[in-house]
Amino acid sequence: MGRFIPLSIPNFEGNERKYVDDAIDQGWVSTGGAYITELEKRLAAYLHTDNVCACQSGTSALHLSLVEAGVVPGDIVLVPPVTFIAAVNPVRYQFAEPVFIDCDDSLCMDPLKLRRFCEEKCEVKDGRLIHNDKVVRALVVVHVFGNMADMEAIMDVAEKYNIKVIEDATEALGTRYTEGKYAGKFAGTIGHFGAYSFNGNKIITTGGGGAITANKSEVVDHLRYLSTQAKNDPHYYIHDEIGYNYRMTNIQAALGVAQMEELEEFVERKHKNYDLYKELFEGFELGRLLGYREGTYSNQWFYSLLIDRTKVTATMREIITKLQSEYGIETRAIWGLINEQLPYLKEECFELEKGPYYAARILNIPASTQLTEEDLRYTAEKVMAVLKELAE
Amino acid sequence: MGRFIPLSIPNFEGNERKYVDDAIDQGWVSTGGAYITELEKRLAAYLHTDNVCACQSGTSALHLSLVEAGVVPGDIVLVPPVTFIAAVNPVRYQFAEPVFIDCDDSLCMDPLKLRRFCEEKCEVKDGRLIHNDKVVRALVVVHVFGNMADMEAIMDVAEKYNIKVIEDATEALGTRYTEGKYAGKFAGTIGHFGAYSFNGNKIITTGGGGAITANKSEVVDHLRYLSTQAKNDPHYYIHDEIGYNYRMTNIQAALGVAQMEELEEFVERKHKNYDLYKELFEGFELGRLLGYREGTYSNQWFYSLLIDRTKVTATMREIITKLQSEYGIETRAIWGLINEQLPYLKEECFELEKGPYYAARILNIPASTQLTEEDLRYTAEKVMAVLKELAE
Repeated sequence: MGRFIPLSIPNFEGNERKYVDDAIDQGWVSTGGAYITELEKRLAAYLHTDNVCACQSGTSALHLSLVEAGVVPGDIVLVPPVTFIAAVNPVRYQFAEPVFIDCDDSLCMDPLKLRRFCEEKCEVKDGRLIHNDKVVRALVVVHVFGNMADMEAIMDVAEKYNIKVIEDATEALGTRYTEGKYAGKFAGTIGHFGAYSFNGNKIITTGGGGAITANKSEVVDHLRYLSTQAKNDPHYYIHDEIGYNYRMTNIQAALGVAQMEELEEFVERKHKNYDLYKELFEGFELGRLLGYREGTYSNQWFYSLLIDRTKVTATMREIITKLQSEYGIETRAIWGLINEQLPYLKEECFELEKGPYYAARILNIPASTQLTEEDLRYTAEKVMAVLKELAE
Repeated sequence: MGRFIPLSIPNFEGNERKYVDDAIDQGWVSTGGAYITELEKRLAAYLHTDNVCACQSGTSALHLSLVEAGVVPGDIVLVPPVTFIAAVNPVRYQFAEPVFIDCDDSLCMDPLKLRRFCEEKCEVKDGRLIHNDKVVRALVVVHVFGNMADMEAIMDVAEKYNIKVIEDATEALGTRYTEGKYAGKFAGTIGHFGAYSFNGNKIITTGGGGAITANKSEVVDHLRYLSTQAKNDPHYYIHDEIGYNYRMTNIQAALGVAQMEELEEFVERKHKNYDLYKELFEGFELGRLLGYREGTYSNQWFYSLLIDRTKVTATMREIITKLQSEYGIETRAIWGLINEQLPYLKEECFELEKGPYYAARILNIPASTQLTEEDLRYTAEKVMAVLKELAE
């Protein structure tokens, strides 16, 4: 096999094997064990928040957040069209209805359109925002590719209209504000709930895994209770609520504790690699590298090359296949718009313009923390060559 | 610390560490990887079935089965009162309604009462069983503690009334019929769906994990699709259905492959230990060890001592606490009746008699496969002594 530059793979340069072996040797591999609580402690310290619940996935973190936010069948939840579909599916797990709100140039929910939807398409009754006779209970704002959404403006709207804010920080562990009202606050710790993911492609991984935080410590305790089958104590089978099997396992958490030791190093490498890409793509006429919100320090998890569609008309599939087959470079298209997926075709969309624009133009290029300077130079060179070739 | 006899802990005497280390070294720790497919292959071969989907937990296996069975809000699902609450919660995840059907002396669903409920409390309309204007879509039959339910009689009723049968074999991996119509068939492979669990306390463990099978191979393929976020292919983000993040991870599956190599050995140890307990409790006047269904070979996962409540009136908590604190013996009460848990207090129950009877009387005694003959003799001796003491 020739050269292979993966898009985003795990990096196990630290104590991963040591801690996992320790969990196995102790026989603590399931949903109890010291690594779980240790991971929660380290996450809380890192995020400057009181309490974090480790769970099974970002999806389960989002689902539990919706449950805790009181989303019930028939409610409306405002969601983004440009993100991984797991940000929206939990709305359907609750048999509630999504309404798609467009993104801004950060790829995250546009606060102006969010406000306009609330003002123009809804009314307030008994302190609740109502749309088509349904309660708009919550919104899911995704910090896409590690880029912070405009949380100041979003929180303003949400507070005004009594909407619970679920921050989908599954891609944004480490992203924080450096300026403004929320200076020092991390993505996921600003809204009512914050969901993180430690899936295999994320900035740190536990294999499969996630975490939730909330703006009140006792709410996190309750989320932990729900995630452990709502068992009132470990020995007797008394359950006061409908629980879920959403707890992280100790073996996954062992990986996570090792990964937390490396997280800041990974973020620094992401920055270094982004800076080099930025330099390499400087002046390239067929595409430009998107940036991250000013006044924030992003984890720069993923890099987005915005392709000039007036010049490159090849499909994403052609571009990706060519890079993979000829140069061993793994890239991906941004997601298919969620509102265009079969299960969501009939759902309401509000002023979608930028979502479709970016969805047709973004190519994600390799972002693994192991990549060498040579890998990055090779990648940038070949990506530019392929786009030039396809533009001719 | 003095002696400690655990109730049911994992046994990692085989290749567990080797395979898990291999998964980490390869960087395949998430929801893709060779151990997942290997575990599925080994499970299918062991269960003599075509196709098995490895997933995140027994709970997720049950939930996916209900989804695939077409259970929607307002439907009715027939469930048992005596089991772990995770057998029933997924009914509520679908916003459907459980109706509790009593167990027989096997602790599993009573087919006679099931039939009576269908005959006397329901009517058939357009080929569908209707109760209180609601469709009785499915039933969940749990093979409690590894004891096979009376599947011949249950399948008869289910076929007659067009009810999908979800076998909760989470505790019964390895249990099979040796005689009768289903001779050679394993628990979980008789109904429409079968759910397995590899939680830490089960006969084999993957930390957290489970599996699903179905009576049609293509249905299992569809369950696998649903469990992997309903992604149509690995590279492009097209989803034709609402999916779930329910796939097993490769690191968990690595544990599972090692455990599968030991499964039959574990079942044999369970039998050997049961036989010794049987001998030791022979003639004990305050309790008797429950057996397993004739015409089956059970995995004998858990042992149930039925306490004579005319003589021992102490609470389960008193018995359990005394055994733990004075002798280091970990025991547990059977579960609290699900219909008596807060979230289910208002649900309908049908002729519950044996459920409450057994729920008040069963003490589960240590069943870990590591226990030595001396551990078992010590345990039996002390359990009898404590019950005698509390009966005085």
